[in-house]
Amino acid sequence: MRAVQVVGYHRPMELTEVPKPEVVDPFDVVVRIGGAGVCRTDLHVLEGQWAEKSQVTLPYTIGHENAGWVESVGSAVTHVREGDGVILHPLATCGLCRACRSGDDVHCTASAFPGIDTHGGYAEYLRTSARSVVKLDPSLQPAAVAALADAGLTAYHAAAKASRRLGPRDTCVVIGAGGLGHIGIQVLKALTPARLVVLDRNPDAVKLALEIGADDGIVADGGQVDEVLSLTGGNGAEAVIDFVGEGGSTAQGLAMTRRAGDYHVVGYGENVDVPTIDLISAEVNVVGNLVGSYNDLCDLMELAARGRVTLHTSTYALDDFQSALDDLDAGRVRGRAILVP
Amino acid sequence: MRAVQVVGYHRPMELTEVPKPEVVDPFDVVVRIGGAGVCRTDLHVLEGQWAEKSQVTLPYTIGHENAGWVESVGSAVTHVREGDGVILHPLATCGLCRACRSGDDVHCTASAFPGIDTHGGYAEYLRTSARSVVKLDPSLQPAAVAALADAGLTAYHAAAKASRRLGPRDTCVVIGAGGLGHIGIQVLKALTPARLVVLDRNPDAVKLALEIGADDGIVADGGQVDEVLSLTGGNGAEAVIDFVGEGGSTAQGLAMTRRAGDYHVVGYGENVDVPTIDLISAEVNVVGNLVGSYNDLCDLMELAARGRVTLHTSTYALDDFQSALDDLDAGRVRGRAILVP
Amino acid sequence: MRAVQVVGYHRPMELTEVPKPEVVDPFDVVVRIGGAGVCRTDLHVLEGQWAEKSQVTLPYTIGHENAGWVESVGSAVTHVREGDGVILHPLATCGLCRACRSGDDVHCTASAFPGIDTHGGYAEYLRTSARSVVKLDPSLQPAAVAALADAGLTAYHAAAKASRRLGPRDTCVVIGAGGLGHIGIQVLKALTPARLVVLDRNPDAVKLALEIGADDGIVADGGQVDEVLSLTGGNGAEAVIDFVGEGGSTAQGLAMTRRAGDYHVVGYGENVDVPTIDLISAEVNVVGNLVGSYNDLCDLMELAARGRVTLHTSTYALDDFQSALDDLDAGRVRGRAILVP
Amino acid sequence: MRAVQVVGYHRPMELTEVPKPEVVDPFDVVVRIGGAGVCRTDLHVLEGQWAEKSQVTLPYTIGHENAGWVESVGSAVTHVREGDGVILHPLATCGLCRACRSGDDVHCTASAFPGIDTHGGYAEYLRTSARSVVKLDPSLQPAAVAALADAGLTAYHAAAKASRRLGPRDTCVVIGAGGLGHIGIQVLKALTPARLVVLDRNPDAVKLALEIGADDGIVADGGQVDEVLSLTGGNGAEAVIDFVGEGGSTAQGLAMTRRAGDYHVVGYGENVDVPTIDLISAEVNVVGNLVGSYNDLCDLMELAARGRVTLHTSTYALDDFQSALDDLDAGRVRGRAILVP
Repeated sequence: MRAVQVVGYHRPMELTEVPKPEVVDPFDVVVRIGGAGVCRTDLHVLEGQWAEKSQVTLPYTIGHENAGWVESVGSAVTHVREGDGVILHPLATCGLCRACRSGDDVHCTASAFPGIDTHGGYAEYLRTSARSVVKLDPSLQPAAVAALADAGLTAYHAAAKASRRLGPRDTCVVIGAGGLGHIGIQVLKALTPARLVVLDRNPDAVKLALEIGADDGIVADGGQVDEVLSLTGGNGAEAVIDFVGEGGSTAQGLAMTRRAGDYHVVGYGENVDVPTIDLISAEVNVVGNLVGSYNDLCDLMELAARGRVTLHTSTYALDDFQSALDDLDAGRVRGRAILVP
Repeated sequence: MRAVQVVGYHRPMELTEVPKPEVVDPFDVVVRIGGAGVCRTDLHVLEGQWAEKSQVTLPYTIGHENAGWVESVGSAVTHVREGDGVILHPLATCGLCRACRSGDDVHCTASAFPGIDTHGGYAEYLRTSARSVVKLDPSLQPAAVAALADAGLTAYHAAAKASRRLGPRDTCVVIGAGGLGHIGIQVLKALTPARLVVLDRNPDAVKLALEIGADDGIVADGGQVDEVLSLTGGNGAEAVIDFVGEGGSTAQGLAMTRRAGDYHVVGYGENVDVPTIDLISAEVNVVGNLVGSYNDLCDLMELAARGRVTLHTSTYALDDFQSALDDLDAGRVRGRAILVP
Repeated sequence: MRAVQVVGYHRPMELTEVPKPEVVDPFDVVVRIGGAGVCRTDLHVLEGQWAEKSQVTLPYTIGHENAGWVESVGSAVTHVREGDGVILHPLATCGLCRACRSGDDVHCTASAFPGIDTHGGYAEYLRTSARSVVKLDPSLQPAAVAALADAGLTAYHAAAKASRRLGPRDTCVVIGAGGLGHIGIQVLKALTPARLVVLDRNPDAVKLALEIGADDGIVADGGQVDEVLSLTGGNGAEAVIDFVGEGGSTAQGLAMTRRAGDYHVVGYGENVDVPTIDLISAEVNVVGNLVGSYNDLCDLMELAARGRVTLHTSTYALDDFQSALDDLDAGRVRGRAILVP
Repeated sequence: MRAVQVVGYHRPMELTEVPKPEVVDPFDVVVRIGGAGVCRTDLHVLEGQWAEKSQVTLPYTIGHENAGWVESVGSAVTHVREGDGVILHPLATCGLCRACRSGDDVHCTASAFPGIDTHGGYAEYLRTSARSVVKLDPSLQPAAVAALADAGLTAYHAAAKASRRLGPRDTCVVIGAGGLGHIGIQVLKALTPARLVVLDRNPDAVKLALEIGADDGIVADGGQVDEVLSLTGGNGAEAVIDFVGEGGSTAQGLAMTRRAGDYHVVGYGENVDVPTIDLISAEVNVVGNLVGSYNDLCDLMELAARGRVTLHTSTYALDDFQSALDDLDAGRVRGRAILVP
């Protein structure tokens, strides 16, 4: 089969012929790829940024946002069968550690990360563990949802975690209405009755946020903390989800958080640097957020199946992988780029 | 190897020679049995009470409360190795269904139940899934804890569930200080600061309950509802755990439950029969309880390792299995009977 | 001022002139009534059904679903001021007992119940405690929301409690799409992404349920348990809210509840009568539900202010109170009858 | 009556004769002081550090850790009566705001703080709100528990909040075994089965921690992060409670926190300064902690009544208030200094 592989750092990936993977163990699933998201992380892999951390042996097949159809399954696989449309959780987890046994499988102590530390989805087929395979509703096309497997799942996770404490009288502020924020807004509208205030530096992003359900939109031009305080009776919001995490957003995010509220960190870059006295006197929580769990991905796919969460995509043939990467690097992709074998 | 098998209903089990099980699949674990609890359920199996439900093919090896040492493991097993002391969760769960993925594996939609619907632990060796294997602290002997695998785990589960809402000002009533109640009392003392009131018809059981930590003991001779109300300012207890479930205990248990409190059903026999108006006006919850999860068993073993939960046992050689069953049937066993191969 | 009073059981209420209430204590609030819901309970009061329980002294002013405008406030009242539109929680709670201090004020051990055990709102003015007064959004008219104060609040409470465990992949069944169910459906749509299945014997009620947001509607003609099981892959629903509580709905409701699910009792009449073995083997919870808390009422008013929850009402002048009661008794009221002084 | 008053900043307090307070409003309670804790905050008040924040008018009576006996009550007070032993929550809250209505009264938007912004307890009598009054078990002497009203309550709150997620297999690290840490350790032992590891720079404090229940003690001499990691299989603790908050403890505390764990800030001084990427990749929470709620104080008093939480005190006559302050300032007080009128 054809696969796009990293053959060396700081040199172009190559489309080559490799053996088609086969089911070996009872929990193996071989997936025919229907779409693989092209992500900025893929550029970073090529630059060698993940080399030390992943310890991956070159050459290997890249691609960590994968969806497709089940080609074949091992003897112990009961939840999907040949022909099912599926999306793949980014981690193939062990199923035995305490985190896995608690539904918190993202903190698995022995997971593999296809596309990063083992073969990924820029290919015609991918072998993975049954534990990463989520069955899709027949109404969903793999290529349309592939990019929800990682970036979308991170947004879902933070939005769902924040929602647990949000009621009708609460306010949730979303900082950043870009790729993740866009998904986060749709998820929040589906999961919580809270008032939703969205901030972005880009007026077009704010406008789009209002179209997809935000109750209030604020162009972040320096006065955004005051505007949020003004919208909340001077108190701040019960939850703030920061999809930016740089350029001063952490201090602003905390300043918008109500006493006893939650400030969620999703985007990253700068430091959270806050006096302990401020954390204590306002009794706020700074909440880290990683990618979502397998269950989160199942929930997100349910919302997608009902049309509650949608995503713009631009598709490229597998042969055109280099164009997709180049377009992403140059900021020419509208929505998310998807490779379709 | 030797194994005690059910060869027909309403006739004695037989100790026979069968092939020693081997590791076949990556998640297989073969355990050398160190102790197998002899349970009233085993008598019921022989009477054919489980035949229709389990659909088991005879002959098969009985025994569902098993502990021992790891003999060999499949290639995917990472949490135990050869020689480790282990206890086995009664269910071998699929790891793929929604319940399994949520840590609520007892509600697995595709589990096996060794000793009931497949080969169990009245034998020298048992093959099971890695998902049922809990590693023991080196201080714990398999034969000493085997009986915690099912009966003890049920008590742990109900006590832990009740504990989640119990604080220092709350009262928890335990109805029945027999086998399960005895474990439940020890668990409650370890998990919650609530005041613990124990009821039993048997004054000796009440006395023992007080020795292992109950704050108040009541001999259930007809005045127990009034006594609990009297101990709680006329309000009843925030949680009542009923390990009896027959002889009027459900109506009494509900009558002892405070407004907005939880009445936990663990023992069974009679019906809960309560006017809806009473459930509503007091806003109480009737809470069903099944055996505990894999995580519950891990937690229980941690308490056992610290000496917070102990169990009296009487051991029998595997060859003497019939004596163990006879003694159990005749009420001659002190504590729990354990077969040791 | 004018007030409608119970002057004796089994004889008509009378509209009489009584002194206008005044603020006496720091937490007193006098409310000019804008609307008082006419409820079936009022008919029961007149029949003497509440006489023993309430120990109220006749004559007294009836009416327990009240809204209006603040006329005057005591010195300690900080959350409302003269002229504010307000709705009154049915209970005037003590603020000092453990339940009140925990936000669970419905279980207050020393509450008054205006309209039942003290003067209510079939009058021009009502004096109550600041603790029962919820400020209305200026967009809401007291007469339009008064009937949400008790019946609507009960539906809100059950729906909100059920929602806490419902995610996108879950199903919630509502049994009964009458007065309470109608509110419950709207609340569930606002609070949870779960699939919503509504049952009613009346095809028109089912039709209306679908119009206000139910995902599936079932005419309860005997096959409803099978239909719910069929819609849920044979498993049943994660939550069932029974607004009927009679005519066999409790057994049916439990039969529709998934393993580890919640069966919520709101309507009442018959007994819940279920074998303990069934509660245990399926590990289901039977959850009692009373009227909502002060916080629940605040949340419900927020949803009403956004138009997420609406109610049909028929208004009557205070002078026409007897017509309102007669129409209610004869089933001639469309939506809820409201007295407007 | 006699009272110690602040008559000017940077000059000694004065013991003067002032009018005995009387009950005026229905929720008033006048308390005869049995003990008032002498706290470092009192020294700060005298230095003017609270002047701007509190806006208190001089002269006023200082003292914010108060306990005694009820002298008289207003007409609406139902939970205590004349002669009852009581301890006073540090805040007199409004009872009407959303925080108060949710049991989260510490975040009341209109509270008074006796001893800081109104008359406190260095006096023979104090008038306060019924909402701050907690009835003591008859076994508890006001002077013995007064110092638990603020410092102890803060420790309780953090320990109780941390306990909610701690089970038998978890580890909780306590940084700092001084005044607050000492209470925190006792509370944790009562509320959670988790393994308790205590760090302090002072070997005597570590020794004392082990005597009152810590499972492991570590002298914090630079290697404490490694020691905690070593005790937890390299993973860190599920919860870390930092009662120090300066001298590098925040970075160390976070370094000891397991993936998906909670780092609780209680002590203050330095900044929490952490890369967002670290918060995200480990998905940890930084949890602010303020003083406990009224309910927390009730729970703490229950533990005190059972002897689960004890405190060393040194008592001084009210006339000797200056000695108490001087001894505190000079580090000569063993345990906590208590003024007894």
